[in-house]
Amino acid sequence: MSYKYHMPTKILFGQACVLNNSILLKAFGKKAMLVTGKHSAKHNGSQEDVISALSTEGIDYIIYDQVMSNPTSECCYEGAKMAIEHQVDFIIAIGGGSPMDAAKGMALLAKQEINQKQLFNGEYIADALPIIAIPTTAGTGSEVTQYAILTNDLIESKTGIATEAIFPKIAFVDARYMNQLPPTTTINTAIDALSHAIEGILSIRASVVSVTLAYKSIEHFSECMVPLLHVKQSNSIETMTLKERESLANCSTLAGMVIAQTGTTIVHAMGYSLTYFKSIDHGRANGLLLAEYLELVEKDEPQTVEAILRVMGLKSVHGFRRFMGKLLGIRETIIDEEMHQFSEKAIHTGNMNNCRIKPKKEAVVAMYKAAFNE
Amino acid sequence: MSYKYHMPTKILFGQACVLNNSILLKAFGKKAMLVTGKHSAKHNGSQEDVISALSTEGIDYIIYDQVMSNPTSECCYEGAKMAIEHQVDFIIAIGGGSPMDAAKGMALLAKQEINQKQLFNGEYIADALPIIAIPTTAGTGSEVTQYAILTNDLIESKTGIATEAIFPKIAFVDARYMNQLPPTTTINTAIDALSHAIEGILSIRASVVSVTLAYKSIEHFSECMVPLLHVKQSNSIETMTLKERESLANCSTLAGMVIAQTGTTIVHAMGYSLTYFKSIDHGRANGLLLAEYLELVEKDEPQTVEAILRVMGLKSVHGFRRFMGKLLGIRETIIDEEMHQFSEKAIHTGNMNNCRIKPKKEAVVAMYKAAFNE
Repeated sequence: MSYKYHMPTKILFGQACVLNNSILLKAFGKKAMLVTGKHSAKHNGSQEDVISALSTEGIDYIIYDQVMSNPTSECCYEGAKMAIEHQVDFIIAIGGGSPMDAAKGMALLAKQEINQKQLFNGEYIADALPIIAIPTTAGTGSEVTQYAILTNDLIESKTGIATEAIFPKIAFVDARYMNQLPPTTTINTAIDALSHAIEGILSIRASVVSVTLAYKSIEHFSECMVPLLHVKQSNSIETMTLKERESLANCSTLAGMVIAQTGTTIVHAMGYSLTYFKSIDHGRANGLLLAEYLELVEKDEPQTVEAILRVMGLKSVHGFRRFMGKLLGIRETIIDEEMHQFSEKAIHTGNMNNCRIKPKKEAVVAMYKAAFNE
Repeated sequence: MSYKYHMPTKILFGQACVLNNSILLKAFGKKAMLVTGKHSAKHNGSQEDVISALSTEGIDYIIYDQVMSNPTSECCYEGAKMAIEHQVDFIIAIGGGSPMDAAKGMALLAKQEINQKQLFNGEYIADALPIIAIPTTAGTGSEVTQYAILTNDLIESKTGIATEAIFPKIAFVDARYMNQLPPTTTINTAIDALSHAIEGILSIRASVVSVTLAYKSIEHFSECMVPLLHVKQSNSIETMTLKERESLANCSTLAGMVIAQTGTTIVHAMGYSLTYFKSIDHGRANGLLLAEYLELVEKDEPQTVEAILRVMGLKSVHGFRRFMGKLLGIRETIIDEEMHQFSEKAIHTGNMNNCRIKPKKEAVVAMYKAAFNE
């Protein structure tokens, strides 16, 4: 047996964790840059809490609130420029995966002058401004990973930046910030988290620690399967409790700890094309493909798949597919040519190398077909 | 729900992990101080591997090999002096809990001039030389904790130094170094690890992450219950396989990750007096007391105790006591007066505050009585 485990981020989980632990921010300097998207951080209470915590500690701040969905490297360069100009000491990322990942890119670029190609090729030193991460969705797990997934127009896909320097120093996880997430975002992000946990188990780098955390993550997801179906059916989040939001937050953060060890698999690689070319939300993209990959893995590792399904209270991949089908609703249309193009891309990714069960290109095409012909 | 998780150490687990990852040492500087006890590191292959790894990376080194069991602060001052005189950049601790904890004390004292009282009262800055930890027993978990437990003559007990600065940067866990551990050490250290996992579950600071890891730790212990009984009965380690050693190593490292979050409980507090005054080995001391505390906790939290026993394949605390009895053999003699004195000490410790179920002094005395009157 041989494995590696590393996840240095300090996690503070729970209601009011930002305000109750504001003193921890002091260690990072006198001036912060808040990085968020345009709207949600202003409405869910997170930005207000952060500003209040900074004020308590006498820390100055500026705000960059222009992060878009599926953030570009341009956005990271812009934020880094602002961080340098204003001489900020650290970055506080507030939001879903997009603001957190963009903030990580900014933190790296604020410390070194490299071009886009160098950024995507990993030609940088492991040095970045300290990052504090405050997730406001329960999906990405970026608050506890060394990854920043950015849109990469050079290869028409998404590329993961990976360096220990961008592990957040602290993750403040307060599910209250997720309480008003719209139905579709709630569902898509939850699926993303589930996908991380499952893919972690199927990774070539799965270990005793990561697999243990992954099953616990799936357990938390399972507690919310019925609530998520209610959200879908009613197209409303009114029935979702804070306790369920906390379960999803735990699912997501634990799954983040998992992929920090294992990376993701072909499911993510296949999903990136769906997002880049077809504008399908990232979590949803994974969800569309997950059952197909489980079915493929089941042939070689029936016990692993059975164990995953058991934690979810499901008896078969068919049951998994039916559950996901209910959550996902009507599927997008993808033509054959696209499937071949996307498959070709997917098989040449690092995610593919990460799979214990590595599908051939034809099998990848078949997964796309099965996913979109239901 | 509210919790904190932090364990920044990078774990490399597996055979030859030191040699295969020697490159990681380069980041810590040009000169290392190896800290070990007098003998075992020289015989189990660990010191040889470390020296070979340092030579591969062109790193100079000195050796401090005078750490005794239950190390004193004097030993830490001596090592720190040597580290300063030789201007070492980092410390490599090789051994069981004693060398690892002493090395942590040295790393701290090499960075600041404080006296013994300040050291034990936590009056230090969070700065220490980087520490690389290489456990050669499967018990303490010190390779992944922020604690150094030192003999404290000022209060006639053991005192834990706790600061994030002494979390090892890297833990290299290679069970081959444990392959020749004598029967008694094998058993006592395994019991220590089990105690950490169980006490972590019973701690007021238990969380979703720590409890998940704790049960996995106990699961690893369970795989070795029969092998450990064989070791005891035969007073030989010949039947113990490397796979079982790896299970115990996993049990220990996972349990270390647990207590890094939760601390330990009254069991450890009670055990410290047994070690300080009666020279009973630390792990054995915990083992003598564990069943009694489980029985006490069972009254208030029957489900928790049942869950722990279930993972161990046991049906009752009585079964647990019987199993531990077989491992522990003939018990030492403690007179009533000592029990009262030790109990008085135990109830005024931080470990006591850490308990979800906090026994009154009479209950602590009763636990000692039950433990030594069997």
